[in-house]
Amino acid sequence: MSKSAYNQLENYFNRIGLISDITGILHWDSAAIMPKGGASSRSEQLAELRTLNHEILIKPELENLINEAQEKKDLLDAWQEANLRQMSHQFKKATSIPIKLVRAFSKATSKCETVWRNARDENDFKLVNPFLKEVLNLTVQIGQAKSEALNQTLYNALLDDYEPGGESENIDILFSKYTKFLPDFLDKVLCFQKAKPEIIPLTGPFPIKAQKNLGLALMDLLGFDFNHGRLDISHHPFCGGTSEDIRITTRYDEDDFTSSLMGVLHETGHALYEMGLPKKWQKQPVGRAMGMSIHESQSLLFEMQVCRSENFLNWAAPIIQKHLGGYGPAWEAKNLYRLYTQVQPSLIRVDADEVTYPAHIILRYQLERAMINKDLTPNDLPAAWNDGMRNLLGITPPTDREGCMQDIHWYDGAWGYFPTYTLGAMTAAQIFKAACDQNENIMIDIRKGIFEPLRAWLTKNIYQKGRLLPASKLLKEGTGEILNSSIFISHLKSRYLNE
Amino acid sequence: MSKSAYNQLENYFNRIGLISDITGILHWDSAAIMPKGGASSRSEQLAELRTLNHEILIKPELENLINEAQEKKDLLDAWQEANLRQMSHQFKKATSIPIKLVRAFSKATSKCETVWRNARDENDFKLVNPFLKEVLNLTVQIGQAKSEALNQTLYNALLDDYEPGGESENIDILFSKYTKFLPDFLDKVLCFQKAKPEIIPLTGPFPIKAQKNLGLALMDLLGFDFNHGRLDISHHPFCGGTSEDIRITTRYDEDDFTSSLMGVLHETGHALYEMGLPKKWQKQPVGRAMGMSIHESQSLLFEMQVCRSENFLNWAAPIIQKHLGGYGPAWEAKNLYRLYTQVQPSLIRVDADEVTYPAHIILRYQLERAMINKDLTPNDLPAAWNDGMRNLLGITPPTDREGCMQDIHWYDGAWGYFPTYTLGAMTAAQIFKAACDQNENIMIDIRKGIFEPLRAWLTKNIYQKGRLLPASKLLKEGTGEILNSSIFISHLKSRYLNE
Repeated sequence: MSKSAYNQLENYFNRIGLISDITGILHWDSAAIMPKGGASSRSEQLAELRTLNHEILIKPELENLINEAQEKKDLLDAWQEANLRQMSHQFKKATSIPIKLVRAFSKATSKCETVWRNARDENDFKLVNPFLKEVLNLTVQIGQAKSEALNQTLYNALLDDYEPGGESENIDILFSKYTKFLPDFLDKVLCFQKAKPEIIPLTGPFPIKAQKNLGLALMDLLGFDFNHGRLDISHHPFCGGTSEDIRITTRYDEDDFTSSLMGVLHETGHALYEMGLPKKWQKQPVGRAMGMSIHESQSLLFEMQVCRSENFLNWAAPIIQKHLGGYGPAWEAKNLYRLYTQVQPSLIRVDADEVTYPAHIILRYQLERAMINKDLTPNDLPAAWNDGMRNLLGITPPTDREGCMQDIHWYDGAWGYFPTYTLGAMTAAQIFKAACDQNENIMIDIRKGIFEPLRAWLTKNIYQKGRLLPASKLLKEGTGEILNSSIFISHLKSRYLNE
Repeated sequence: MSKSAYNQLENYFNRIGLISDITGILHWDSAAIMPKGGASSRSEQLAELRTLNHEILIKPELENLINEAQEKKDLLDAWQEANLRQMSHQFKKATSIPIKLVRAFSKATSKCETVWRNARDENDFKLVNPFLKEVLNLTVQIGQAKSEALNQTLYNALLDDYEPGGESENIDILFSKYTKFLPDFLDKVLCFQKAKPEIIPLTGPFPIKAQKNLGLALMDLLGFDFNHGRLDISHHPFCGGTSEDIRITTRYDEDDFTSSLMGVLHETGHALYEMGLPKKWQKQPVGRAMGMSIHESQSLLFEMQVCRSENFLNWAAPIIQKHLGGYGPAWEAKNLYRLYTQVQPSLIRVDADEVTYPAHIILRYQLERAMINKDLTPNDLPAAWNDGMRNLLGITPPTDREGCMQDIHWYDGAWGYFPTYTLGAMTAAQIFKAACDQNENIMIDIRKGIFEPLRAWLTKNIYQKGRLLPASKLLKEGTGEILNSSIFISHLKSRYLNE
């Protein structure tokens, strides 16, 4: 008997899955291990993997197989059907963009990224401006091609790479609610925090080895499986590798352990998600993690909802003290909690606190949409950025280095990525609340440093679902409603104003 | 103007080169970094890379392009012509073996290797015997297919994977000379060494960090470029990665630094070769390292010819002492030299000294040829092995674990590999002698810890040649003669009997 069209598709996508896993390991290697001199060769290797992936994805027989499988859809179970949807979506996207455009984009982003590093160091936006224009120009062309193929608006077509099925119309609603909420709330929080005694600073040095062991110990307690993963060092912390071999990274500062530690817990959230994906569908599109907002919700659920909470820090404080040899009032859970929930408007997104972070994102979201829709040109970006920061947070970057040149995303061609950070934060609050509402042991156990009930809930409702459902449906099935920023807002009110 | 056939071939082989480099990094990762749980997924990734490589290599258009390029050979320079020869050879080999046979072989070796680990641990050859038979059977089928395509004998066709152009007829001559030489020489060496005062043992512990720093310091002095390479840890030391990103590994024993240190210097020899290959031809077949005997000659040249010499150890002893905090007579160069040149017949190949090592290889070479030619069945391998050890070295393995099950090679399908170790040792002696004869500064400078003149000679005569010439011609051009075991024998007589 010859193989069904669907089964043949699974074979093709198994190969694509393997190539993508190989890419994951090489990316990690570039960031964590590779000697500098390997860089140019490595970028050729990664480009070759992209080509190989693309070559399989645009094979003409794929279209026939997809059509045939779709005709015989009643032979498929729900997972297979969802898998087929993913396959068809990937095929459509891959074939929509002329290969010439893909190559031009790849070249332009690579060039622009290099110039950006320089321009940022020299604080000279004019240097990178023409290259950014070219990236934007090609981004729009790609977006238009995808927009036609997927029958979506231009922005949504770009967003789709990071947030499949995401719609700016919904993001607008969620973000505008936050924009209205923030000014008054931020004032109150700043007053509230000012009225309290000063936070006691923690003074180092904190040896890197001790910090690493502390991170490993907490990863282990949260459920990270070291038979299927590692913790290493890289300049920008991330979670990479493959779902059977997860590589998370951090960077250490001998003078301050707090941000590295929270970074490790954040990446552990990403890792637990990848580790919990359905083994049966490991290499298939349907078995992969959802888009960025769900992925980010899993890291932020651990970092923001769990690990920055008083409950967690009450339990973790003695472990932190033990590993770093700290004692006295500065090391008490109360002080650690205040350290980890300090709010202060600031210029740099990656250093922002939980309350002001969404403002950084909303600014970028507004600006990238304006640029994509040609309502704003990169020429006017620095001024628009500074106006936005003033309006949203009341501060003005003294330089473009601390303004519109701080993030790699646009220069590297990642347009449509930014909103997923804040969608993730909102999703995290909603998921964590639903989990705790549905099982009161989750919170009781977190106070004791037991995370199994939480992981069990996440495994059942998020991890094990892979891409069976669209993000909005996944969230609705797990939490009872689609994404709603008011749960995030309630969480902030409770944490920062005791409301 | 459309691209010439030759240029189109370069594009294809550039891709093959990249896939092979990716494989090199993933192999290194598996051995040095990967958590255990990643193993099954990793072997799928490596299999996928083999498939991708094979798919490019057997594209029908390649044959047309090769024919066309060969017809227009007068347009090519010497490097391009040699490159075309390599391409054609690879194409012939790849297309000669039916894909079904490749898959069956891959499956059988993977299974046999797993069973072998068990059988070795339980010292039960019978467990692995049927699997070894299957591997042998498929090896012979593959060998026959290649033998027809390449117009070579069966054994030479298998040897070709490790030693392109190698011929067992020449190996027979070289090895039989050694077999005649060894018994009497070994007796003399043992007496000679016995007559001397006892070697003073070096007692540890030697902290791993200090051993690592010593290794790094000597690698640096020998010329290893850390911008293009790393030193890490793995169970079996090796040199992997790519020529722009060389990953060498070692393993440390806190009670004995000597073997790890010499291992690092051995792998450094491999690494310097890879690092010195012609950049211009980096991804092309002609720019790759030669077969195993030349590669092994480059590691053994550093390990055996240079680093185990009195000259080197006189210079290195203070560095070794400094890093490991050693002092007293045991740490003097004289004692270190005696330690590093101690001869003692033993059962395990990888622990063997320079004098008896070839006997281990000759035994394996004789046995594998007999099995391939059906003059010996795996059933009778254990007895034949023990007889051979008795004849060659006068010792009998008490168990098959220390006998015919000690090496992975046959069980993993690497038939035709073994002779290259000793060909490498002989080649190393010949190359080192030629280099020193041609430039007397080489030896003068080694005494001072300066390796530039040696590296310059090797760069010009070996490294920069890539695969421009066949191994025999490369050797003849560099040393004035084809491989001749008498230079190796003279080296042994001089080192071990002061003759």
